[in-house]
Amino acid sequence: MRYNEMKREELIRERNALLEQYEAYRSEGLKLDLSRGKPAADQLDLSMDLLNAPLAAADCVVDGFDCRNYGCPWGLPSMRRFFGELLGVPAEQVIVGGNSSLALMYGTISRAMLFGLANSPAPWSTVPDRKWLCPAPGYDRHFAITEKMGFELIPVDMTPEGPDLDQVERLAQDPAVKGMWCVPKYANPTGVTYSDATCRRLAKMKTGAPDFTVMWDNAYAVHDLADRGDELANIFELAKEAGNEDRFIAFTSTSKITFPGAGVSAMAASSANLDAAKKYLAVETIGYDKLNQLRHLKYLKNAEGVKTQMARHRALLEGKFRILEQTLSRDLDGLGIAEWTHPKGGYFVSLDLPDGCAKRTYELAREVGVTLTPAGATFPYGRDPRDRNLRLAPTCSTTAELGIAASILTVAVRLAAIEKLL
Amino acid sequence: MRYNEMKREELIRERNALLEQYEAYRSEGLKLDLSRGKPAADQLDLSMDLLNAPLAAADCVVDGFDCRNYGCPWGLPSMRRFFGELLGVPAEQVIVGGNSSLALMYGTISRAMLFGLANSPAPWSTVPDRKWLCPAPGYDRHFAITEKMGFELIPVDMTPEGPDLDQVERLAQDPAVKGMWCVPKYANPTGVTYSDATCRRLAKMKTGAPDFTVMWDNAYAVHDLADRGDELANIFELAKEAGNEDRFIAFTSTSKITFPGAGVSAMAASSANLDAAKKYLAVETIGYDKLNQLRHLKYLKNAEGVKTQMARHRALLEGKFRILEQTLSRDLDGLGIAEWTHPKGGYFVSLDLPDGCAKRTYELAREVGVTLTPAGATFPYGRDPRDRNLRLAPTCSTTAELGIAASILTVAVRLAAIEKLL
Repeated sequence: MRYNEMKREELIRERNALLEQYEAYRSEGLKLDLSRGKPAADQLDLSMDLLNAPLAAADCVVDGFDCRNYGCPWGLPSMRRFFGELLGVPAEQVIVGGNSSLALMYGTISRAMLFGLANSPAPWSTVPDRKWLCPAPGYDRHFAITEKMGFELIPVDMTPEGPDLDQVERLAQDPAVKGMWCVPKYANPTGVTYSDATCRRLAKMKTGAPDFTVMWDNAYAVHDLADRGDELANIFELAKEAGNEDRFIAFTSTSKITFPGAGVSAMAASSANLDAAKKYLAVETIGYDKLNQLRHLKYLKNAEGVKTQMARHRALLEGKFRILEQTLSRDLDGLGIAEWTHPKGGYFVSLDLPDGCAKRTYELAREVGVTLTPAGATFPYGRDPRDRNLRLAPTCSTTAELGIAASILTVAVRLAAIEKLL
Repeated sequence: MRYNEMKREELIRERNALLEQYEAYRSEGLKLDLSRGKPAADQLDLSMDLLNAPLAAADCVVDGFDCRNYGCPWGLPSMRRFFGELLGVPAEQVIVGGNSSLALMYGTISRAMLFGLANSPAPWSTVPDRKWLCPAPGYDRHFAITEKMGFELIPVDMTPEGPDLDQVERLAQDPAVKGMWCVPKYANPTGVTYSDATCRRLAKMKTGAPDFTVMWDNAYAVHDLADRGDELANIFELAKEAGNEDRFIAFTSTSKITFPGAGVSAMAASSANLDAAKKYLAVETIGYDKLNQLRHLKYLKNAEGVKTQMARHRALLEGKFRILEQTLSRDLDGLGIAEWTHPKGGYFVSLDLPDGCAKRTYELAREVGVTLTPAGATFPYGRDPRDRNLRLAPTCSTTAELGIAASILTVAVRLAAIEKLL
């Protein structure tokens, strides 16, 4: 029965029953965590052969470059091809980075601030009222970059097909709006993959700023959790057709393919934007770690090798997503107080509660030992205007821990909802 | 006999003899290179055990951190101690970076441009007439960073004790002068190690800008080529005594200890400057590659291990420096046209010629197959005001190649000098 159809005394009875469970959990002194969107140790164990591949001096020479020495700043040609295959672009449109795609994104925005991008009339730091579009719920680390750089962050609603493009098209007419964050596949945290129509509209739309830039963070490009994963349109092809090749800069990494602390990142963009980036990157570094590129090439080989590796990750992950789903469904179905996503890939489940219930749920869970991603974290400035969204990250717990943590979560959700109703 | 004491016909006879040698070299179709300040393959071979150390999953947990996963953004505590020992600072004053200390330097200047450093009245990008001191001859990649950032580069003469501090003290009174580049030990390319007096004066001097910053690139901290290498004063202790702790930001890396393409870098600074950096670095990246930190810890262990490793490098390098020295001395002693450095460490020999002879020497050498670092490269904007300095990098050639390349160089030097005199 839906909570909002219950009589007051029914709700009180329900609350008391829940409080009993809640206190029982408290007495157990648990310490559980649903906040960390990172692989568990068993996933890291998958890639130990990458670490332990024997390398003779001769093996270190790839494409004519000695990976042990300086040089080859845009990445080994083979590694550029590798990422080109993953991102659906020619190798020449790829720059291979270090261990962090976030650092490549920060670097891109930072260069745009200081020097501008290919089509910038002026460096972004000279635009005093600069603004940035933030589909939300979204990724807090994205928002933090543009916040630190002094942009006004403008939230855009997420729909099941991607960001609400009516809002985006309207807002992008302002020349002070310099771009937007996108996680186009298995978005953090909604799990949404942008539809073809969304991609096409994004590629075509008119923008006020000639250097309006979509930061296309394809972090979960190959991270399926289902037999038939989502398919993402090739944004560079669509952009080319629309004559807006310079609009998109794509990022990805092997962080959740091999090692989050020690993977390889990459960036793809139009020749104009890559040329602009290279001019400054050449001053910033003599090159990234090619030995780690070599290890990844030897281990993953190509897109087919990545697929095999991702199937092994999926085997370890899908049970965890199932437990979370089953627990949410078992405890919350039919109460009319919660909606959550059923992602076919990625690392998160997004949970929407009645307005004003997210912070309270977070606090209730924390008090009995379950750490959640702070309520609001998925919105610009950490402020969820409706205080209703929670990001759930099931990957880093064991299945046993997860079952308990999810059960505690649903108790907290129900208690918060009843508090609101009473 | 000194060239400038020779009669015209003697000079012509000398030139003709040299031209005969020169044409003989040309006919050999050589391809030699004295431009690359990087280790040769035999030096890279020294560290193959670092690459091939077997790592079990349990080995990857260091100081309580799983090096394979996200986290620990300032570096493994053990690695911070390792670099603290090398740089003479407590571990807490160290941030461990990725594979490139140059990237840490670029990042520091870039953050100062966008946000300012600990003591900055305003971001450097808002100082329209900003200036930067460049001891020259110096390192072209340093100069390039501040040039790209829009600083006016002001050359400062190098003396055998370091930068000319009379010039520095005078120039630093201008509040628009925001800092200077220093390679304090075995400087690139002069091989000079700053004297204690120089370090003390730098630490004490009055500056117009409250955030005057010395970029202390201690790239060759442990790179001795002699039994008794140079000793560099502890700049952080001197700065602390003088109450100018925030003035110095130090950088180093294992690039020329293990692998130039795949080493580990570090930065040391006052708590105030580190705190300021961390605030933005935390937004820029989730952390650097800890598995590479782990490999380095296992292989080098500590300062003693580094010493052992550097002795092996020295054994491979000192013969090369000797050949270069012997050839220069054999062919140029007593002619009054060349002076060169006799470094006790580092990677370079700096050669000074008569004014107006460096470019011509470069061209003459190139024409018969010897690539030198372009004349002027060691000065701001690539312009040597006296056109007399050449940077010689003997490390990357074989000893056989080096003997020939150096002999060709001295022919080119003599021809250029005679052309000038005739």
